[in-house]
Formats: sequence, structure tokens, C-alpha cells
Amino acid sequence: MSDATRRIRRLDARDPDFLPTLDALLAFESGADARIDEAVTEILRAVRTTGDAAVIEYTRRFDRLDVKSMAALELPRSELKAALDSLSVEQREALRIAADRVRIYHERQRAESWDYVEADGTRLGQKVTPLDRVGLYVPGGRASYPSSVLMNAVPAKVAGVGELIMVVPTPNGEKNPLVLAAAAITGVDRVFTIGGAQAVAALAYGTQTLPQVDKIVGPGNAYVAEAKRRVFGTVGIDMVAGPSEVLVISDGSGHSDWVAMDLFAQAEHDELAQSILLCTDAAFIDAVEAAIERLLPTMPRRETIAASLANRGALIHVESLEQACAIANCIAPEHLELSLDEPEPWIARIRHAGAIFVGHWSVEALGDYCAGPNHVLPTMRSARFSSPLGVYDFQKRTSIIQISEVGAQTLGRVASTLAHGEGLQAHARSAEMRLHK
Amino acid sequence: MSDATRRIRRLDARDPDFLPTLDALLAFESGADARIDEAVTEILRAVRTTGDAAVIEYTRRFDRLDVKSMAALELPRSELKAALDSLSVEQREALRIAADRVRIYHERQRAESWDYVEADGTRLGQKVTPLDRVGLYVPGGRASYPSSVLMNAVPAKVAGVGELIMVVPTPNGEKNPLVLAAAAITGVDRVFTIGGAQAVAALAYGTQTLPQVDKIVGPGNAYVAEAKRRVFGTVGIDMVAGPSEVLVISDGSGHSDWVAMDLFAQAEHDELAQSILLCTDAAFIDAVEAAIERLLPTMPRRETIAASLANRGALIHVESLEQACAIANCIAPEHLELSLDEPEPWIARIRHAGAIFVGHWSVEALGDYCAGPNHVLPTMRSARFSSPLGVYDFQKRTSIIQISEVGAQTLGRVASTLAHGEGLQAHARSAEMRLHK
Repeated sequence: MSDATRRIRRLDARDPDFLPTLDALLAFESGADARIDEAVTEILRAVRTTGDAAVIEYTRRFDRLDVKSMAALELPRSELKAALDSLSVEQREALRIAADRVRIYHERQRAESWDYVEADGTRLGQKVTPLDRVGLYVPGGRASYPSSVLMNAVPAKVAGVGELIMVVPTPNGEKNPLVLAAAAITGVDRVFTIGGAQAVAALAYGTQTLPQVDKIVGPGNAYVAEAKRRVFGTVGIDMVAGPSEVLVISDGSGHSDWVAMDLFAQAEHDELAQSILLCTDAAFIDAVEAAIERLLPTMPRRETIAASLANRGALIHVESLEQACAIANCIAPEHLELSLDEPEPWIARIRHAGAIFVGHWSVEALGDYCAGPNHVLPTMRSARFSSPLGVYDFQKRTSIIQISEVGAQTLGRVASTLAHGEGLQAHARSAEMRLHK
Repeated sequence: MSDATRRIRRLDARDPDFLPTLDALLAFESGADARIDEAVTEILRAVRTTGDAAVIEYTRRFDRLDVKSMAALELPRSELKAALDSLSVEQREALRIAADRVRIYHERQRAESWDYVEADGTRLGQKVTPLDRVGLYVPGGRASYPSSVLMNAVPAKVAGVGELIMVVPTPNGEKNPLVLAAAAITGVDRVFTIGGAQAVAALAYGTQTLPQVDKIVGPGNAYVAEAKRRVFGTVGIDMVAGPSEVLVISDGSGHSDWVAMDLFAQAEHDELAQSILLCTDAAFIDAVEAAIERLLPTMPRRETIAASLANRGALIHVESLEQACAIANCIAPEHLELSLDEPEPWIARIRHAGAIFVGHWSVEALGDYCAGPNHVLPTMRSARFSSPLGVYDFQKRTSIIQISEVGAQTLGRVASTLAHGEGLQAHARSAEMRLHK
């Protein structure tokens, strides 16, 4: 592609073909890859069958770690502590502040058990309990992010998860001290230096050394995503995330440089990331476009940013903020910035978004790291039906049904009538047996 | 299989091979079926491409309904009302009582938005909103259950879902008045007489007549389950349920006939349903086995019950209630009955179950129909990580992040440090731009 065509596209919501163009821009299907399917099938089978031995062998093959036992792939807590101590004061404090703020926010999400007793003595309720054991996948290499450890581990710990086991591949033995420090700060219980589909399999099925978990969370590459999809049911999983997205709604107030950099921040993740501006002010869009041109060459990740903006970005002129909100609700973006001097009235108009960043000071990067709310958010329009990662993802509910003898008389007659209506006579008789003669 | 071998098995938890035997008994894998895969692929593609026309054609082919337009497949509200009026007083009242009780219980599950303001003016919160539009699948034919309409529609309505669209196949035009009456009582907004993968596709993608929904809930056959699995991501789905299960824990108190009938009530669902008794009293197990022998011939669904008990049932002698609870936590049953004179102390010991029925009067059938809690519960050990269907499945959360100018100064420095540590310079600069010089 020539440089001239590698620009962010400009669209106008008044154009007759705007909606199909927008649809095409948003469309993203993670294509099935037969090679990945096959590899994951084999790895899951091997780990399920032979446990530790298979994990050790794949770790030798893929990460070039030569160990005799699974125990050699576990990091002692002292090594996590040492990684934390090795950081600069500034980095250590930043991690601590971020972890504290994320914890304080998430503590508000903890659900409590409840029950109520009816007049006849029947007690109904819901018992809320934390998951027993959770696996946290952390990618190795370039996408190895300590903030991801914070955002997954903190809500699990706030929920009261009994044991949190982190897996992180260390290709050629290279460890990321920030990631290990984040594990130390958040109180991760055990860390294994394994990755890929073999780590997902070990967590899902358990091995001689690594105990089976109840749920696996955390981002990973295509092999990890496919492995998680396959083990779902055996264990719980978090969402399988798509490319990251930001939608900025502007009325032309604020700084065009700020908006340009906010679009860059999303685009620098990878070439599939999506940065879109909806703006009522054509002159401001011009200014943002000029800022993009001016600032782009100064960015270390300019190649990724340019490709992402050209592939999937857009600067869209809209007629009104009402129209912008309508489009936003259709997009249901992962991140939404209300880049407005008077944002308050517009919050209620947004029905679907992972997170809403309100006003010019609320830049997404603050939410990514340290504002408090979770940075694991629904992508690809799934904010229409799903939520940010939260404490609720590490708690589960059990119904409590304690019917009194009196209650069994009234409820038994209702259940009997309905069960006979459904042709389920054993259901009916089990209720009728409790009726007084 | 001869009658002699078609008995429920008896196990003893003290046997050295008890655990592998239990594992084998619990094991259930829904095998992939290439024929179903292929059919579902084609149906999804056709409906996605041609909409109404494909739905009409499949409905003609599979349900033998000959209509010219999709509108002819929609039932007017007057027909739902007429179905309700056609019921006996007893049935109508039973449905009403059940719906009211389910509503009252579920109202306690509704989550509310919250926020808090920090000293520097930064506001953080979580906005809770109902889903816009939900599809409810209701099976036709033998497994057409009005209670399923109640248990899915009521929590959706309590959550405040904007539009609830029910689909129910009516092969040869046969409609189930109880199902339509349940739709009337729960305020379902629209009903289409379509089913199978074509109904799931219509809900997931939308057609010219049927608007796209945000989530699809409700049980269905293997085609429906596979179609739901495939459209997940485009829309949300509830769990894909496995065979139904009950685990009864007994200390020999109570009536052996009651326990036998409770095991029957699960087993009558289908041949894969699982009924297990854990009991500390060998003589009581003998009595339950005798009751099974005596009562089975009196049951209209005795063939299904006998097959289910022989295939997947067990009467297990355990040493203590402590051991029974440990086994229960391993099984993580969908339904658990604490069939004990003094059940209270044991509730806390159960960490994993969809619903706990406490004491002899709390028979599962009351929970299935009218106690109040939901009857859609996690199966196949997934109570380790998931919850009963609830209002929370029809609500979603959006994080609200409103950083003050002062807040942007302190948080900006933290975010900048962490972003540089992750090599994400545009993230860092977008935060730094908000810092005062």
C-alpha cells in the first residue's frame, strides 16, 4: 500500500451509503485456522492424557526451556518478591497505587448472600460463594502486560478465590520483572512458567503437579484463545476478546492533539485495533487530521498506528450529538470517550459501551492502568449483552430452597397441577407425597 | 439389556475403586455430530443471506407449515390471551401463582447502578442497564414446557428488557395452549411459530420481519444447541445445558418412598438424566431400593425412568455426612436435596450446587415450578463456576470513569509510568498531554 492511501478515512453520516460503509468498517470475523485447530486438538489430548510429561515436552519445544520436572517450571514466591524489589521506586509505587485503586473500585462489586422467610416459614435465598481455584493466563513476549495481571488478579482476590494460579510463558527463560512484580503485589498464589495451549490444558484438566482450576481468565494468542474455547464447559472461561476499540464523541470542544493521541493510543495495540471519531464540527475534524499527520512521525509505534488507522479507523462527521449517540449505541464500543465540555446529559443516552470516559480529562489510558474500573471490556459489539470483567466473574450463586411443612401443602398443589400439565407424573407425585392426606 | 441388569447400581464409598467408578458414572461428553454441524452451517448461512424467505422455507420443510409470509408465522397477542382464557381455573391459577412467586424472588436479584466521588472530584461508577431485546427459544412437541417460559421470561422482564421475542415451533400447526398462556402471563412481546436452527439464526441475525436480538436464552434440541453455540459472539447466549441431575444426601431420616420418587422425578426427563443418592444408612438404602422396585411399575414414564436409573443412577453408601458433602462438592450437582431432619449445619458445607433443597419438605419439583428461584441451573459440574439463570443474565454493566482535572494530574503520572513500562508510548503521551506544564 502506498503512503498516500495509508490515511485514516473520513466519512459523513449524511452520505446515503454511510450505514453500509460503517457496517463494513466494523465487520471483523476471526477466521478459523485449520492449522491452529489441529495443533490445539493434539496439545489438549496430550496434556489430558499424560499431564506433566506433555507440558514439559511442549515447553521444551515451544519455549526452549529444558527442565526435568514440572516443579522446575514453578516460580517460588521469593522470586516474585525479588522482582518487585528490583523495580525502580517510581515503578513499584505506580504498580501499588494502581493495584490499590483497582481493589477499592472492585470491592463495590462484591455480591453478598441473601434470603427471606415467608409467612408460612418457607425460606428462599441465594448463597454467593467465590470460585475455589482460578487460572490466570498472562502472555509472554511483546504483549506481556503487568496491568493485565492487576486487572485479572485483583477482582479474583476481592471475590475471595481460594487459589489463584498464574501461567506465563518465558521463551528462552526470559522473565518480565514487571509481570512478576504485579503477581507479587496482587497475591497470586502460584506461578508456572508455561504458556500456549499446553498451559490452558494443564489448568483445565489438571496434571500431577498443577491442580485443575474452575475457571481460566486472561488474554492470549490465537492458540490460547482456541484452547480456551475448547475447554469451556470443563472449566469456565472469560470472554474471548476481539481487537481493541475506542470511539470518541466530540463536539469540537477540547484539543485536537488530545483526540489524535487518544486515537493513537488505541491504534498502537495492533493493526486490527479500531479508532473512530464521531464529531459534529468539520473544522475540528480537519484539526484532528492535521494533528494525526503532525504527531504520527514522532511515535515509536508509528507503523502499527498508521496501519491500524488506515485499516480500521475513521473520522466521521455527524449532524448532531443525538446522532453520535445513536451510532455509538449501534457500535457498542469497548471504550467510549465523551470528549465534550458538557458531557453529563449525554451519559444517559449511551446504552451500550464497555466503559464511558466522561469529559476531556478522562483519557482512556487512565482507565487502562489505574483509575480503578477494569480494563477487560467487551469488544465487537458484545457490550450489547456483556459487561466488564468484575468480581461477579469470580463469584457464583446457589439457590437455597427451604420449604416449610405448611408451604409444601400450598406449593405442592401448584406444582402438581403444572407437572401434570407437562406430562411429568413423577414430578407431580413427588410433590403430592408431601401433601397431608 | 435384560431386566435383571437394568437396575440402579449400588456403590460403597469405602471401596478402593470408588472414585474412578464415580468418575466414570459422571462422565458425559456430548459427542460432535457431523450431520448436525453441516445442517446447522447451511441453515445459518441461508437465513443470514435471505432472511424471511429462508425461515419460511425451512418452516415449511421441517414443521410442515405452508405460509406465504413471515407475518403469518407471528401470533397476535389476542391468541395468547385466548389460550390463557381456555385453561381450567386450576391451571390458570397455578400458572399465575408460579409466575408471581418467580417474579418476587427474582426482584431481589436486580442490580442497581452505583458511583462514588473521590476527594479530588473524580467520579467512578458502574451503570447497570437491561438488554434491549432478547430472544426466548421454547421447544415444541413433547418437551414443550410452560414452566420454561416462566423461568426465562420472568427474569428478563424483571431486568427491564425492552422487547422479549419468543419462538416456538408448532409442527403441523399444533400449538400448546399452556405455553401460549405462559407467554401471555409473563408479558412476552412477540411470538413467532418457528423453531430449530432457523429460529436461532433469525433471532441472531435478524430478518426483514424479525428484528435482531442481543441475547438468546432457552433450551432446545441438538440443532438448536449447536446453532446457539455458533451464533455466540454475534449475540449472547445462556448456558448450553447438559442432562439434568439430582443428588440426594440422606442420613436415613425421612421416607424411603419420598426419596425414591424424587430420584424418579429426575430420571423421567430422559435416559441421560442422572439421579444419585448418598446415604449413611445401609438399611435405608435397602428401603429406597425396595421402594424403587415397588413404585416403578406404577409410573407412566417407567421405561425412561428405568433406563435413566440403570444408565446413570446410583445408590451410594457413604461413611458420614462429611464424606457425602465432600462427594457433593466434587459432583457439583445441578439439584441437591439435603434429605435430613437437621439440615441446617450442612448447608454451609456445600460449596458447589445449582440449587440446594433443604429438608424433607423441599422436594425438587417445587423448585422446578413455583417456589420462586429459577429452574435453569448449571449442569455437568459447571456449578463450580456458574450460577442459576437470573436477572443478572439480562442486565449488563458499563464502567463510568469521570476524572477531574486534579485527578488527571496524579493518575496521569501513574499511567505514564506503567505505559512506558509496557512499551505503549501513545498511551503514555495521551495521559501526559493532560498534565499541567
